[in-house]
Amino acid sequence: MKEGNKMMFQQVLPAEIEKRSFEIITQELGNTELDPLQAPIIKRVIHTTADFDYVENLCFSYDAVSRFQQAILNGACIVTDTQMAKAGINKKRLEKYGGEVYCFMSDEDVAVIARENQTTRAVASMDKASKLQKRLIFAIGNAPTALVRLYELMEQGRIRPEGIIGVPVGFVNVVAAKELIMQCEVPYIVAKGRKGGSNVAAAICNALMYEMV
Amino acid sequence: MKEGNKMMFQQVLPAEIEKRSFEIITQELGNTELDPLQAPIIKRVIHTTADFDYVENLCFSYDAVSRFQQAILNGACIVTDTQMAKAGINKKRLEKYGGEVYCFMSDEDVAVIARENQTTRAVASMDKASKLQKRLIFAIGNAPTALVRLYELMEQGRIRPEGIIGVPVGFVNVVAAKELIMQCEVPYIVAKGRKGGSNVAAAICNALMYEMV
Repeated sequence: MKEGNKMMFQQVLPAEIEKRSFEIITQELGNTELDPLQAPIIKRVIHTTADFDYVENLCFSYDAVSRFQQAILNGACIVTDTQMAKAGINKKRLEKYGGEVYCFMSDEDVAVIARENQTTRAVASMDKASKLQKRLIFAIGNAPTALVRLYELMEQGRIRPEGIIGVPVGFVNVVAAKELIMQCEVPYIVAKGRKGGSNVAAAICNALMYEMV
Repeated sequence: MKEGNKMMFQQVLPAEIEKRSFEIITQELGNTELDPLQAPIIKRVIHTTADFDYVENLCFSYDAVSRFQQAILNGACIVTDTQMAKAGINKKRLEKYGGEVYCFMSDEDVAVIARENQTTRAVASMDKASKLQKRLIFAIGNAPTALVRLYELMEQGRIRPEGIIGVPVGFVNVVAAKELIMQCEVPYIVAKGRKGGSNVAAAICNALMYEMV
């Protein structure tokens, strides 16, 4: 590499890159006051997106971080609405606590039921998840219809999630679906507004686990 | 659902949600002038992130969209630096053109070599990819070190990619690594600045394919 180009780069050991990134994020947050339990979650989402909007966007129900972590300690499984989020969640770490990650979006039965009911595969996936006899955390990074369906299933008493990570991204019914979840009694971590994504959903799951002993 | 809550939602058929989303994006872009070949790529990245910053951030080398699409038509494979990006790329669509998606990040040999060389797994992954006897597009959504390594491999004449999608996200050497790629002769699509991600990398790959006949 030319000398001029080399000068553009910081010398940081591979193992130190993440640490240095979090230092930069903390520095740029300056005097922004964050709840100490929420801070690592918010910072990891910023680390994943380079988007400081999440300082304002991320909303936590009362005592959410502790409740999600307790659920994971109790062996809760995580249900996601995308293969990308499933790929991004640290599954080895979750296994240590006895949990696993499910995504039913590519299942043939889900596709068939969604077609029959003229609904989304996300809705059919939530219905499938509601039949699992397990403690469940939902990590929704894509489909607002998944959040709406979870609301309905909770209203009907057909499901009682340990918590909902509600961070779908998008332009159609995304904001409303998130507002709906924030009306519920369920522990939630929600990214208000349009922003979010599978990467954000996975980052929140991982941040919760990385703060656990 | 209560009537008040129902009113928050637009009635949009599942199959129409994406179409409606793109309409909203187009509407909000207003008079922003976009190159007609680049527009679908930029809009799909906004669709994936709800972040209009990408209108400014996304940089295309001369004739990049056509060149990437030609490479895909010629059966190019895509190498990514995360399992998340691999999960997000439409692999069935790529297979139609004869390509497949590789991600070597979780390979045991890559981990061993990275440890031995005190480098990142992303660097070792790029070295592994350089030995593939195939047309390759690189879609880098996470590791700036992957972009730096691609630069070095090109300089040394050890690799000649069909194109590089350079959209790592982050705070350490991300900006510089992207600037480096934009100095190269290789066709590129790069998200200038800190923003990007596996989701963005996958969205660009998919947008390229969805505009192909």
